Amino acid sequence: MTSQPPTERPDPGSVRAPSIVIVNTGDGKGKSTAAFGTMLRAVARGWRVSVVQFLKSGEWKVGEEEVARRLGVDWWAIGDGFTWDADDISESEAIAREAWRFAKGVIEGGEYQLVILDEITYPMNWGWIDTAEVVETLRSRPEHVNVILTGRDAPPELVEVADTVTEMRKVRHAYDRGVMARRGIDY
Amino acid sequence: MTSQPPTERPDPGSVRAPSIVIVNTGDGKGKSTAAFGTMLRAVARGWRVSVVQFLKSGEWKVGEEEVARRLGVDWWAIGDGFTWDADDISESEAIAREAWRFAKGVIEGGEYQLVILDEITYPMNWGWIDTAEVVETLRSRPEHVNVILTGRDAPPELVEVADTVTEMRKVRHAYDRGVMARRGIDY
Repeated sequence: MTSQPPTERPDPGSVRAPSIVIVNTGDGKGKSTAAFGTMLRAVARGWRVSVVQFLKSGEWKVGEEEVARRLGVDWWAIGDGFTWDADDISESEAIAREAWRFAKGVIEGGEYQLVILDEITYPMNWGWIDTAEVVETLRSRPEHVNVILTGRDAPPELVEVADTVTEMRKVRHAYDRGVMARRGIDY
Repeated sequence: MTSQPPTERPDPGSVRAPSIVIVNTGDGKGKSTAAFGTMLRAVARGWRVSVVQFLKSGEWKVGEEEVARRLGVDWWAIGDGFTWDADDISESEAIAREAWRFAKGVIEGGEYQLVILDEITYPMNWGWIDTAEVVETLRSRPEHVNVILTGRDAPPELVEVADTVTEMRKVRHAYDRGVMARRGIDY
């Protein structure tokens, strides 16, 4: 199926907001990764950027953190935070609350043009962080502070307060149907 | 609605592929941005990364390009490429074909562990680049070369050859319903 290339420039929109709230949600890949991609643009503009990680991510975000720090981004990670051991859940909850207390101060302080609250929806959905308080903090933030929030199952109140909401949806295809991942037939 | 935090570590999977093909598609934000976020991880690992931009993006990717170059990424952009002026369509087509010729060489050359083909689906869907050739190039690529392809309406053959496909879907909400974007009531 062939479509036609556009011959008119897309409508650039008519309103320029001083800042926006972005939510990346859904069960697919790319929620945090897109936030970190946006971070690149912010850094290129000379913005101050702060990242607050709400879940301990294991190894896979160490690289992003290292490069972000290299680019001058302030990165607050839960060092020994969330674990999968049920015995430590109460401690994990306390650490998530502490992360939010810190993040709230970062937003309200107004020193950063971009604040990324990575995987914040999980502690919100588990009742560890008060969603109404997050929403109120976003609504009353300094007008130049852009905020990106990531994680599955974004609460409706959060979707409502956001300017841009994207659902990263996992697309089903052949490789999902087998138990084992399988590559193409040619290698 | 409150859910429960998990108490078991997620299944890490059992097969480690030497490389993967990722497609970011859909009408929402984050397709290219997530690719650039993944680029950060690759850079942190010391990988060689090549980005090929298939559409002239105007101003908004200049920042990403600048930071990517600062991080040592090789970035091939269509300088005076695609325009929205129908008179230049044939020239734009020629440039897109040239971008693909270049990208194909980058993939086959095997010097990069990650190759990002940004917005390649558009010239594929417009019939400017042969989808079968793209798919064949992906299938027969050197096994250590990861490839990320972005753009709306990924062709089914491309989805089929990919290991991970995410649809970035625009979520409708209050701000989409008005003609003008409107912020929350508190500022």
